Amino acid sequence: MLGNSFGRMFRVTACGESYGDALVAIIDGCPAGLEISDGEIQMELDARRPGTSPLDSPRQETDQVHIFAGVLNGVTTGAPLGLIIYNVDRHDIHVKQYFDVKDLVRPGHAEYTHMIKYGQFADWCGAGRASGRETCMRVAAGAVAKKILAKQGIEVLGHTCECMGIKSKPLSFEDIKAHYRKNHINCADPEAAKKMIERVLVIKDEGDTAGGAVEVIAHGVPAGLGEPVFDKINATLAHALMSIGAVRGVEFGAGFGVSNMKGSECNDIPYVDEDGKVRFRTNRAGGIEGGITNGEDIMIRIAVKPTPTVSIDQQTVNMATMQNQKLSAITRRDPTVTARLVAVAEAMVRLTILDHLMMWRGYDAIQNIEHPWR
Amino acid sequence: MLGNSFGRMFRVTACGESYGDALVAIIDGCPAGLEISDGEIQMELDARRPGTSPLDSPRQETDQVHIFAGVLNGVTTGAPLGLIIYNVDRHDIHVKQYFDVKDLVRPGHAEYTHMIKYGQFADWCGAGRASGRETCMRVAAGAVAKKILAKQGIEVLGHTCECMGIKSKPLSFEDIKAHYRKNHINCADPEAAKKMIERVLVIKDEGDTAGGAVEVIAHGVPAGLGEPVFDKINATLAHALMSIGAVRGVEFGAGFGVSNMKGSECNDIPYVDEDGKVRFRTNRAGGIEGGITNGEDIMIRIAVKPTPTVSIDQQTVNMATMQNQKLSAITRRDPTVTARLVAVAEAMVRLTILDHLMMWRGYDAIQNIEHPWR
Amino acid sequence: MLGNSFGRMFRVTACGESYGDALVAIIDGCPAGLEISDGEIQMELDARRPGTSPLDSPRQETDQVHIFAGVLNGVTTGAPLGLIIYNVDRHDIHVKQYFDVKDLVRPGHAEYTHMIKYGQFADWCGAGRASGRETCMRVAAGAVAKKILAKQGIEVLGHTCECMGIKSKPLSFEDIKAHYRKNHINCADPEAAKKMIERVLVIKDEGDTAGGAVEVIAHGVPAGLGEPVFDKINATLAHALMSIGAVRGVEFGAGFGVSNMKGSECNDIPYVDEDGKVRFRTNRAGGIEGGITNGEDIMIRIAVKPTPTVSIDQQTVNMATMQNQKLSAITRRDPTVTARLVAVAEAMVRLTILDHLMMWRGYDAIQNIEHPWR
Amino acid sequence: MLGNSFGRMFRVTACGESYGDALVAIIDGCPAGLEISDGEIQMELDARRPGTSPLDSPRQETDQVHIFAGVLNGVTTGAPLGLIIYNVDRHDIHVKQYFDVKDLVRPGHAEYTHMIKYGQFADWCGAGRASGRETCMRVAAGAVAKKILAKQGIEVLGHTCECMGIKSKPLSFEDIKAHYRKNHINCADPEAAKKMIERVLVIKDEGDTAGGAVEVIAHGVPAGLGEPVFDKINATLAHALMSIGAVRGVEFGAGFGVSNMKGSECNDIPYVDEDGKVRFRTNRAGGIEGGITNGEDIMIRIAVKPTPTVSIDQQTVNMATMQNQKLSAITRRDPTVTARLVAVAEAMVRLTILDHLMMWRGYDAIQNIEHPWR
Repeated sequence: MLGNSFGRMFRVTACGESYGDALVAIIDGCPAGLEISDGEIQMELDARRPGTSPLDSPRQETDQVHIFAGVLNGVTTGAPLGLIIYNVDRHDIHVKQYFDVKDLVRPGHAEYTHMIKYGQFADWCGAGRASGRETCMRVAAGAVAKKILAKQGIEVLGHTCECMGIKSKPLSFEDIKAHYRKNHINCADPEAAKKMIERVLVIKDEGDTAGGAVEVIAHGVPAGLGEPVFDKINATLAHALMSIGAVRGVEFGAGFGVSNMKGSECNDIPYVDEDGKVRFRTNRAGGIEGGITNGEDIMIRIAVKPTPTVSIDQQTVNMATMQNQKLSAITRRDPTVTARLVAVAEAMVRLTILDHLMMWRGYDAIQNIEHPWR
Repeated sequence: MLGNSFGRMFRVTACGESYGDALVAIIDGCPAGLEISDGEIQMELDARRPGTSPLDSPRQETDQVHIFAGVLNGVTTGAPLGLIIYNVDRHDIHVKQYFDVKDLVRPGHAEYTHMIKYGQFADWCGAGRASGRETCMRVAAGAVAKKILAKQGIEVLGHTCECMGIKSKPLSFEDIKAHYRKNHINCADPEAAKKMIERVLVIKDEGDTAGGAVEVIAHGVPAGLGEPVFDKINATLAHALMSIGAVRGVEFGAGFGVSNMKGSECNDIPYVDEDGKVRFRTNRAGGIEGGITNGEDIMIRIAVKPTPTVSIDQQTVNMATMQNQKLSAITRRDPTVTARLVAVAEAMVRLTILDHLMMWRGYDAIQNIEHPWR
Repeated sequence: MLGNSFGRMFRVTACGESYGDALVAIIDGCPAGLEISDGEIQMELDARRPGTSPLDSPRQETDQVHIFAGVLNGVTTGAPLGLIIYNVDRHDIHVKQYFDVKDLVRPGHAEYTHMIKYGQFADWCGAGRASGRETCMRVAAGAVAKKILAKQGIEVLGHTCECMGIKSKPLSFEDIKAHYRKNHINCADPEAAKKMIERVLVIKDEGDTAGGAVEVIAHGVPAGLGEPVFDKINATLAHALMSIGAVRGVEFGAGFGVSNMKGSECNDIPYVDEDGKVRFRTNRAGGIEGGITNGEDIMIRIAVKPTPTVSIDQQTVNMATMQNQKLSAITRRDPTVTARLVAVAEAMVRLTILDHLMMWRGYDAIQNIEHPWR
Repeated sequence: MLGNSFGRMFRVTACGESYGDALVAIIDGCPAGLEISDGEIQMELDARRPGTSPLDSPRQETDQVHIFAGVLNGVTTGAPLGLIIYNVDRHDIHVKQYFDVKDLVRPGHAEYTHMIKYGQFADWCGAGRASGRETCMRVAAGAVAKKILAKQGIEVLGHTCECMGIKSKPLSFEDIKAHYRKNHINCADPEAAKKMIERVLVIKDEGDTAGGAVEVIAHGVPAGLGEPVFDKINATLAHALMSIGAVRGVEFGAGFGVSNMKGSECNDIPYVDEDGKVRFRTNRAGGIEGGITNGEDIMIRIAVKPTPTVSIDQQTVNMATMQNQKLSAITRRDPTVTARLVAVAEAMVRLTILDHLMMWRGYDAIQNIEHPWR
């Protein structure tokens, strides 16, 4: 396996499986002098933690994080942070359940592709490293990024904007902030949230699971982040978000809507505001023009597939016998991961923005030029 | 500026501006022993070249490519390929046109963000490096990747699948191949193509431009490409495609449709086919499960925004005076870039798949294991 | 801090300080199907461990390593390996000793440069991340690489070849293997070893420390590893070895001797041996020609500076008062680190060779050519 | 071939062979607002150019460089610089000479390893990409870095410090500057230079070639550059310098001398100078402590092997027949490359320092801390 690191300057490297001893993240590029505690990281982890709502998996992982490196007397030293979370809810009964179906391809899961890639040695226990469990280290690392970004005036918030045909009304950053994490589905439109939850509970009762969509807004990002060609900030954000297991699409600003727009409808018109600052009358570009932030809010929307584990019998393949076979209903599952995925998406956006910020500052430091427009 | 390279093993680095002397790409990671000629690369470039259809910009760039390094007697030596295209249609009259509006932000273009980033030194001539002109080196590099992939049985084709409300009917890889590049809009459904072209010509007459969407299918990709966590192949493909200037969204398989699907509807059911091979009854995952290819066609769809240059007056900002000001209609423009963007999208997909293939082969070479399922 | 990762495909990322809770390494790129146990890694760590000889620091770290991720039932799954070592010998008395001198620059140590870089937040306890303690994770990761390389027929061994004017006689790979790790100074020439040890013990009694040099030989490396220009294998090996704290020079084959050689003396003459294989009559190139291995043994020599901690009073600077001040003799120290550094140097060479091997296999896999000479 | 890029933020990518059409470098990470002309880059190239002294190869390459991208009206725009040099001295007679011996391994050259790597497609003409000719793009890129570093008060100078047993006396940065590039051997000690030149001319008359050593000093480098673990600045400098074809060893400060030094002899004692700044009484560390610059001059010494091409018959192998065979004397050669290599070594040191500077500035920008000691 390759690719267990993300970022170039602010760089997260992680390991750990669904039913292994522990998950660890090493965060390279963390500045010195940052006060950070286990508790602050824990707050973000708790937002992602399963077992806290009727919409989640009943798996009881406490996700207690500990910073074991990089901090001296509560302050970072500049050394890489080491974060560890021990897996606690991994009893023999669960391992046995997975062992009993280890030769069966679970539809919508990654077993088949892992078997092709790693042969019979592919981890069969709870999806191993392909489990959504790995995302807790993304969230932990993102919590560190959140604190650093806050000092730069940058905030990133997300919410569930769509679920099974029910859409949130259009919300601004402030709207989301006002109703942030207020309900089980993590939707900042209370009325839509209510309908979404009802809908998911019905689907849950059917033994099925529900898809959704998450909107993430980054506010206070200065104009100038992102590189003009291959490393446009929308390109690296798309990479970051599409690397989350359940995500099937990502769009910025007007997104797929642009397919049916004219140029005159799609262009955001700039103007000089009363403070003499350039602003844009609309934000169809989602805060990014030419791959570089323009100072408006970055607006992102991602599609989240329904959890593939369902309490309904499914046909599948037994890889040991190479025969078609029935896979029985599985009970321990998330009715939807959309609500929990919000925290993961926010984390990936924070990590990406911080990484760009550091690259940009490094580049800009050798530009001996005056900046009349900043 | 950073980020003018793409790929890790098969790595393209490019430079050159819209109105500079020349565009160059250096392709590192090219194998020895590949017969390749200027003409083969030219064929792909011609598919992207402007000025050949009523839907394109009238700019007359011949885009003649020359391989100046890495080839001896028509065969690659293993040294990096050097490809060069000289800009020829850059007459004083055009430079003057850009000079005259150099302080005005062109709505929907990257001038403002470049000015913030590079100050008064930002290239004002034809969008400089932010111009779509840079994509010709993507296409040139992609042509090399295409030839290498063909030897591995991998083919990548795209077409315009949507434009201003008109959608292509659902097409398979073979369908697209059968009607590939047969019309000005590059849509493989002839009836839809006809309507799209009519629609774009009407919009052109209005002085406006049209958005669209492109579908790209990769066929023959072996199962096993892509890395399970941060470098999922859908993540790197999303990065690759979102780095194309006009792209605003990317989705795989069922894409944003998953937001409204149940797990039982979304899961692709595997089965053993008559050759004893594992296949899937549907392809909602778009050929990728857990970030790794599963042997089915990779199905990608991207949203392409309308060209921001319109023949309609627009309000904007003069950065020299910091006053709001009118920007007059501009005549030299593309009514739509969707058709030409198909070749660019194909190129980026080819480069990404080849890069993953090389990484995967390098990793797999040190696995001393039997692979019963390959 | 940046740069806590090494390698591109076989990639080690590490964290942990001298007196922190624990040291961790994450090894990305580890193949599936490798049987590996804590005990095998422990064997290499024991070769580096302090407190086992009169030439070492008396610090009693047991360096017990545990693989906490990437292994299922004793076999790797392809997931990144997670290795952890808890620091055990870190009692309040030691922390207090460091705290008492935290404002004093210890000559030859990294405090001053860390203070400049990380300000007052730089870790003052036992050199923090700048301590030689971090090298245990290099050795642990190198033990994994050793096992993988062994399956490819590649062996890497080192020994102390020089110490305070006493030189080992010239030794072949087999010679070193025959007397490998047989004495406290880790020199494979028993007579020279005896003299070196005597010399170091005298210096130890003076309260001083001793420099040295280490030779590392890689045997069985196939011809073809290394990249012709910026990533010559000698360049990446030099990077790897010079990244070890105490190393001040690195040379290959005839090394600095080439400064006084004529071309006719320096060239290695090739010939066809009785098996029809190309060999070289001499190995002044150290097994590398044009940055690529030629199949002969890779011969490397590194200079190791004496431990800077001495039991002799030294003048220095107090950074709190910005006054010159005396630093008193320190008793807990290594009389020489050369012997222990052998294991670290071997590890870095193994990691580098394996990384090149994977890159080379990945590249070579897309070359559709016959190889008459392999 | 991989590895044709160097640097992470200031990143040079190059292509081109000894007898190809042209050599090109793309420089990513170049700031906007830098006045730079072909002529300034040419000055550095002229210092490396062959055919200008009796110690050089008679090959007549004018090495005329042209900036074809990244500059508008003489000033950089922030876009990557494109630099091109056309090969002009590549007449049929030379190509034929190489063709005639294309199956013979030239001792000390890279043909054999390239044949193993790229098979029969390896470039046989003048060593292809393995030729020292590629170094002209390193020098060209280094000239850009030189100009940027000058604005930061950083200067890098080198000279030939040893040649065939004749050593320069110890020289400071100012000494080298005073006698910089004053003689054919590029040694800043005029007396030693005279002896070196006489010695090389005698060796030239014998039909042989001479090795040497080059010292490079970086002056004005601020304390704080370099990363504490794997990316120590001495590690990346060693990588940079060892990637130059003829280099066989690299050492910093006291270098291999440390093998015979005691700790009390090797430590550099810090003190507060009259300006209240921390300085060191000696510079055995070569300006780098713990992998990070300490503000003293960076002192580097590299070993340069004699040119392998000699006018003396040598035994070798014919790879077509796989028989031993005589290789006749070759007349077109460099009696020594040491003098010309000085410019290449300076360039690599400049590129490395600038790259670290940018990374450091990017990291430091997110440290919200006071720096009492800078």
